[in-house]
Amino acid sequence: MTLHDTYDSTNIFAKILRGEMPAVKVYEDDTALAFMDVFPQAEGHTLVIPKDVEARNLLEMPPEKLGPYMLAVQKVTKAVEAALKPDGLVVTQFNGAPAGQTVYHLHFHVIPRNEGVPLGRHGAGGMADMGELEKLAVKIRAAV
Amino acid sequence: MTLHDTYDSTNIFAKILRGEMPAVKVYEDDTALAFMDVFPQAEGHTLVIPKDVEARNLLEMPPEKLGPYMLAVQKVTKAVEAALKPDGLVVTQFNGAPAGQTVYHLHFHVIPRNEGVPLGRHGAGGMADMGELEKLAVKIRAAV
Repeated sequence: MTLHDTYDSTNIFAKILRGEMPAVKVYEDDTALAFMDVFPQAEGHTLVIPKDVEARNLLEMPPEKLGPYMLAVQKVTKAVEAALKPDGLVVTQFNGAPAGQTVYHLHFHVIPRNEGVPLGRHGAGGMADMGELEKLAVKIRAAV
Repeated sequence: MTLHDTYDSTNIFAKILRGEMPAVKVYEDDTALAFMDVFPQAEGHTLVIPKDVEARNLLEMPPEKLGPYMLAVQKVTKAVEAALKPDGLVVTQFNGAPAGQTVYHLHFHVIPRNEGVPLGRHGAGGMADMGELEKLAVKIRAAV
Protein backbone atom coordinates (compact mmCIF):
# COMPACT_ATOMS: atom_id res chain seq x y z
CA MET A 1 0.00 0.00 0.00
CA THR A 2 1.43 3.34 -0.93
CA LEU A 3 0.70 6.70 0.66
CA HIS A 4 -1.55 7.65 -2.23
CA ASP A 5 -4.23 5.13 -3.13
CA THR A 6 -7.98 4.67 -3.30
CA TYR A 7 -9.97 4.23 -0.07
CA ASP A 8 -11.02 0.59 0.31
CA SER A 9 -14.35 0.46 2.13
CA THR A 10 -13.82 -3.21 3.06
CA ASN A 11 -11.09 -2.25 5.57
CA ILE A 12 -11.73 -3.55 9.09
CA PHE A 13 -12.37 -0.11 10.65
CA ALA A 14 -14.98 0.70 7.99
CA LYS A 15 -16.61 -2.63 8.89
CA ILE A 16 -16.59 -1.71 12.59
CA LEU A 17 -18.17 1.66 11.73
CA ARG A 18 -20.90 -0.12 9.74
CA GLY A 19 -21.50 -2.59 12.57
CA GLU A 20 -20.31 -5.53 10.45
CA MET A 21 -17.47 -6.31 12.85
CA PRO A 22 -17.47 -6.22 16.66
CA ALA A 23 -15.30 -3.85 18.67
CA VAL A 24 -14.86 -3.13 22.37
CA LYS A 25 -15.99 0.49 22.21
CA VAL A 26 -15.06 3.13 24.78
CA TYR A 27 -16.36 6.38 23.25
CA GLU A 28 -18.48 7.57 20.36
CA ASP A 29 -19.74 10.96 19.20
CA ASP A 30 -20.90 12.45 15.89
CA THR A 31 -17.40 12.58 14.45
CA ALA A 32 -15.40 9.77 16.03
CA LEU A 33 -15.42 6.26 17.46
CA ALA A 34 -12.89 4.88 19.97
CA PHE A 35 -12.31 1.22 20.79
CA MET A 36 -9.68 -1.09 22.26
CA ASP A 37 -6.92 -2.29 19.91
CA VAL A 38 -7.19 -6.09 19.67
CA PHE A 39 -3.41 -6.31 19.16
CA PRO A 40 -2.39 -4.03 22.03
CA GLN A 41 1.19 -2.78 22.33
CA ALA A 42 0.46 -2.03 25.98
CA GLU A 43 -2.45 -2.53 28.38
CA GLY A 44 -5.10 0.06 27.54
CA HIS A 45 -4.00 0.61 23.90
CA THR A 46 -6.97 2.44 22.36
CA LEU A 47 -7.74 3.56 18.81
CA VAL A 48 -9.70 6.63 17.74
CA ILE A 49 -11.11 6.78 14.20
CA PRO A 50 -13.14 9.41 12.34
CA LYS A 51 -16.68 8.59 11.19
CA ASP A 52 -18.35 9.48 7.88
CA VAL A 53 -15.11 10.09 6.05
CA GLU A 54 -13.09 8.11 3.51
CA ALA A 55 -9.61 9.11 4.66
CA ARG A 56 -6.84 6.53 4.54
CA ASN A 57 -4.48 8.70 6.54
CA LEU A 58 -3.89 12.18 7.97
CA LEU A 59 -2.95 13.56 4.55
CA GLU A 60 -6.41 12.70 3.21
CA MET A 61 -8.47 13.93 6.17
CA PRO A 62 -10.71 16.84 5.08
CA PRO A 63 -9.35 19.84 7.05
CA GLU A 64 -12.84 20.93 8.13
CA LYS A 65 -13.33 17.56 9.86
CA LEU A 66 -9.90 17.40 11.50
CA GLY A 67 -10.60 19.69 14.48
CA PRO A 68 -13.67 17.85 15.82
CA TYR A 69 -11.93 14.49 15.30
CA MET A 70 -8.85 15.63 17.25
CA LEU A 71 -11.07 16.80 20.11
CA ALA A 72 -12.25 13.20 20.36
CA VAL A 73 -8.62 11.99 20.30
CA GLN A 74 -7.81 14.37 23.14
CA LYS A 75 -10.93 13.36 25.09
CA VAL A 76 -10.03 9.66 24.81
CA THR A 77 -6.38 10.33 25.73
CA LYS A 78 -7.53 12.12 28.88
CA ALA A 79 -9.91 9.26 29.72
CA VAL A 80 -7.23 6.58 29.26
CA GLU A 81 -4.95 8.61 31.52
CA ALA A 82 -7.64 9.14 34.15
CA ALA A 83 -8.76 5.50 34.06
CA LEU A 84 -5.42 3.70 34.02
CA LYS A 85 -3.00 6.28 35.49
CA PRO A 86 -0.03 5.34 33.30
CA ASP A 87 3.34 7.09 33.76
CA GLY A 88 3.05 8.42 30.21
CA LEU A 89 1.07 8.17 26.98
CA VAL A 90 2.10 7.96 23.34
CA VAL A 91 -0.36 9.39 20.82
CA THR A 92 0.67 8.29 17.34
CA GLN A 93 -0.57 8.01 13.79
CA PHE A 94 0.99 6.09 10.90
CA ASN A 95 0.77 7.06 7.24
CA GLY A 96 1.67 4.21 4.88
CA ALA A 97 2.96 0.67 5.47
CA PRO A 98 6.65 1.76 5.85
CA ALA A 99 5.47 3.92 8.76
CA GLY A 100 3.71 0.97 10.42
CA GLN A 101 0.17 1.42 9.09
CA THR A 102 -1.77 -1.83 8.71
CA VAL A 103 -5.39 -0.63 8.39
CA TYR A 104 -6.13 2.02 5.79
CA HIS A 105 -8.68 4.16 7.59
CA LEU A 106 -7.21 7.11 9.54
CA HIS A 107 -6.61 6.25 13.18
CA PHE A 108 -4.69 7.62 16.14
CA HIS A 109 -3.23 5.17 18.65
CA VAL A 110 -3.41 6.12 22.33
CA ILE A 111 -0.84 3.93 24.09
CA PRO A 112 -0.19 4.01 27.86
CA ARG A 113 3.49 3.82 28.79
CA ASN A 114 4.88 2.78 32.14
CA GLU A 115 8.39 3.07 33.58
CA GLY A 116 10.42 -0.05 32.80
CA VAL A 117 7.80 -1.59 30.52
CA PRO A 118 9.05 -1.68 26.93
CA LEU A 119 6.53 -0.97 24.17
CA GLY A 120 5.29 -4.23 22.64
CA ARG A 121 5.36 -4.85 18.90
CA HIS A 122 1.92 -4.62 17.27
CA GLY A 123 0.52 -8.12 17.10
CA ALA A 124 3.59 -9.68 18.77
CA GLY A 125 1.56 -10.65 21.82
CA GLY A 126 -1.21 -12.11 19.67
CA MET A 127 -4.84 -11.14 19.88
CA ALA A 128 -5.99 -9.83 23.23
CA ASP A 129 -8.51 -11.64 25.41
CA MET A 130 -11.87 -9.92 24.85
CA GLY A 131 -12.82 -10.20 28.53
CA GLU A 132 -9.62 -8.43 29.53
CA LEU A 133 -10.22 -5.67 26.97
CA GLU A 134 -13.77 -5.23 28.25
CA LYS A 135 -12.48 -4.80 31.83
CA LEU A 136 -10.18 -1.98 30.65
CA ALA A 137 -12.95 -0.48 28.51
CA VAL A 138 -15.30 -0.28 31.50
CA LYS A 139 -12.74 1.88 33.31
CA ILE A 140 -12.04 4.11 30.29
CA ARG A 141 -15.75 4.59 29.51
CA ALA A 142 -16.35 5.68 33.09
CA ALA A 143 -13.58 8.29 32.75
CA VAL A 144 -14.59 9.87 29.41
CA MET B 1 8.89 14.91 35.03
CA THR B 2 5.48 13.53 35.63
CA LEU B 3 2.40 13.86 33.44
CA HIS B 4 0.97 16.51 35.73
CA ASP B 5 3.27 19.37 36.60
CA THR B 6 3.64 23.14 36.22
CA TYR B 7 4.57 24.60 32.83
CA ASP B 8 8.21 25.73 32.88
CA SER B 9 8.58 28.74 30.58
CA THR B 10 12.35 28.21 30.32
CA ASN B 11 11.87 25.09 28.18
CA ILE B 12 13.70 25.20 24.84
CA PHE B 13 10.56 25.46 22.68
CA ALA B 14 9.29 28.42 24.72
CA LYS B 15 12.69 30.04 24.11
CA ILE B 16 12.39 29.38 20.37
CA LEU B 17 8.91 30.96 20.41
CA ARG B 18 10.29 34.03 22.19
CA GLY B 19 13.17 34.28 19.73
CA GLU B 20 15.75 33.55 22.44
CA MET B 21 16.95 30.38 20.68
CA PRO B 22 17.48 29.80 16.97
CA ALA B 23 15.51 27.23 14.97
CA VAL B 24 15.40 26.19 11.33
CA LYS B 25 11.79 27.19 10.73
CA VAL B 26 9.61 25.76 7.96
CA TYR B 27 6.16 27.15 8.73
CA GLU B 28 4.47 29.65 11.00
CA ASP B 29 0.91 30.93 11.41
CA ASP B 30 -1.12 32.53 14.20
CA THR B 31 -1.42 29.29 16.16
CA ALA B 32 1.65 27.20 15.39
CA LEU B 33 5.34 27.12 14.54
CA ALA B 34 7.15 24.30 12.73
CA PHE B 35 10.90 23.74 12.60
CA MET B 36 13.45 21.02 11.95
CA ASP B 37 14.29 18.70 14.89
CA VAL B 38 18.00 19.17 15.68
CA PHE B 39 18.20 15.53 16.82
CA PRO B 40 16.42 13.97 13.82
CA GLN B 41 15.29 10.35 13.92
CA ALA B 42 15.12 10.45 10.12
CA GLU B 43 15.97 12.97 7.40
CA GLY B 44 13.24 15.60 7.37
CA HIS B 45 12.13 15.08 11.01
CA THR B 46 10.03 18.19 11.73
CA LEU B 47 8.34 19.46 14.91
CA VAL B 48 5.10 21.44 15.14
CA ILE B 49 4.36 23.38 18.34
CA PRO B 50 1.43 25.56 19.40
CA LYS B 51 2.00 29.27 20.07
CA ASP B 52 0.57 31.41 22.89
CA VAL B 53 -0.30 28.46 25.11
CA GLU B 54 1.27 26.95 28.21
CA ALA B 55 0.53 23.31 27.50
CA ARG B 56 3.10 20.70 28.49
CA ASN B 57 1.33 17.97 26.57
CA LEU B 58 -1.87 17.01 24.71
CA LEU B 59 -3.77 16.56 27.98
CA GLU B 60 -3.19 20.22 28.87
CA MET B 61 -3.96 21.75 25.45
CA PRO B 62 -7.05 24.02 25.70
CA PRO B 63 -9.66 22.23 23.53
CA GLU B 64 -10.61 25.47 21.73
CA LYS B 65 -7.02 25.81 20.49
CA LEU B 66 -6.54 22.18 19.47
CA GLY B 67 -8.32 22.29 16.09
CA PRO B 68 -6.34 25.19 14.59
CA TYR B 69 -3.09 23.69 15.89
CA MET B 70 -3.85 20.30 14.34
CA LEU B 71 -4.57 21.98 11.00
CA ALA B 72 -1.00 23.27 11.13
CA VAL B 73 0.25 19.75 11.99
CA GLN B 74 -1.62 18.40 8.96
CA LYS B 75 -0.35 21.21 6.71
CA VAL B 76 3.26 20.52 7.71
CA THR B 77 2.80 16.75 7.31
CA LYS B 78 1.53 17.31 3.76
CA ALA B 79 4.44 19.64 3.02
CA VAL B 80 7.06 17.19 4.32
CA GLU B 81 5.45 14.50 2.16
CA ALA B 82 5.32 16.72 -0.93
CA ALA B 83 8.88 17.98 -0.44
CA LEU B 84 10.70 14.76 0.44
CA LYS B 85 8.44 12.04 -1.01
CA PRO B 86 9.05 9.48 1.75
CA ASP B 87 7.44 6.02 1.57
CA GLY B 88 5.55 6.80 4.77
CA LEU B 89 5.24 9.29 7.63
CA VAL B 90 4.88 8.85 11.39
CA VAL B 91 3.02 11.61 13.22
CA THR B 92 3.57 11.19 16.94
CA GLN B 93 3.25 12.99 20.24
CA PHE B 94 4.69 11.99 23.62
CA ASN B 95 3.14 12.73 26.99
CA GLY B 96 5.58 12.35 29.89
CA ALA B 97 9.17 11.12 30.08
CA PRO B 98 8.24 7.38 30.14
CA ALA B 99 6.56 8.00 26.76
CA GLY B 100 9.69 9.60 25.33
CA GLN B 101 8.99 13.27 25.99
CA THR B 102 12.11 15.38 26.55
CA VAL B 103 10.81 18.96 26.10
CA TYR B 104 7.76 19.99 28.10
CA HIS B 105 5.90 22.13 25.58
CA LEU B 106 3.34 20.25 23.47
CA HIS B 107 4.80 19.11 20.13
CA PHE B 108 3.95 16.71 17.35
CA HIS B 109 6.79 14.96 15.53
CA VAL B 110 6.45 14.52 11.76
CA ILE B 111 8.93 11.81 10.81
CA PRO B 112 9.47 10.57 7.23
CA ARG B 113 9.87 6.79 6.95
CA ASN B 114 11.44 4.93 4.08
CA GLU B 115 11.45 1.22 3.21
CA GLY B 116 14.43 -0.54 4.78
CA VAL B 117 15.54 2.48 6.82
CA PRO B 118 15.06 1.82 10.54
CA LEU B 119 13.89 4.72 12.70
CA GLY B 120 16.84 6.31 14.51
CA ARG B 121 16.81 6.87 18.24
CA HIS B 122 16.29 10.50 19.28
CA GLY B 123 19.72 12.03 19.74
CA ALA B 124 21.56 8.81 18.87
CA GLY B 125 22.98 10.38 15.71
CA GLY B 126 24.02 13.51 17.58
CA MET B 127 23.06 17.03 16.64
CA ALA B 128 22.27 17.57 12.98
CA ASP B 129 24.38 19.79 10.74
CA MET B 130 22.54 23.13 10.48
CA GLY B 131 23.44 23.48 6.79
CA GLU B 132 21.88 20.09 6.04
CA LEU B 133 18.72 20.99 8.01
CA GLU B 134 18.46 24.28 6.13
CA LYS B 135 18.62 22.41 2.77
CA LEU B 136 15.70 20.22 3.85
CA ALA B 137 13.82 23.23 5.25
CA VAL B 138 14.09 25.07 1.92
CA LYS B 139 12.28 22.17 0.23
CA ILE B 140 9.60 21.88 2.93
CA ARG B 141 8.95 25.64 3.01
CA ALA B 142 8.44 25.61 -0.75
CA ALA B 143 5.84 22.84 -0.37
CA VAL B 144 3.73 24.32 2.46
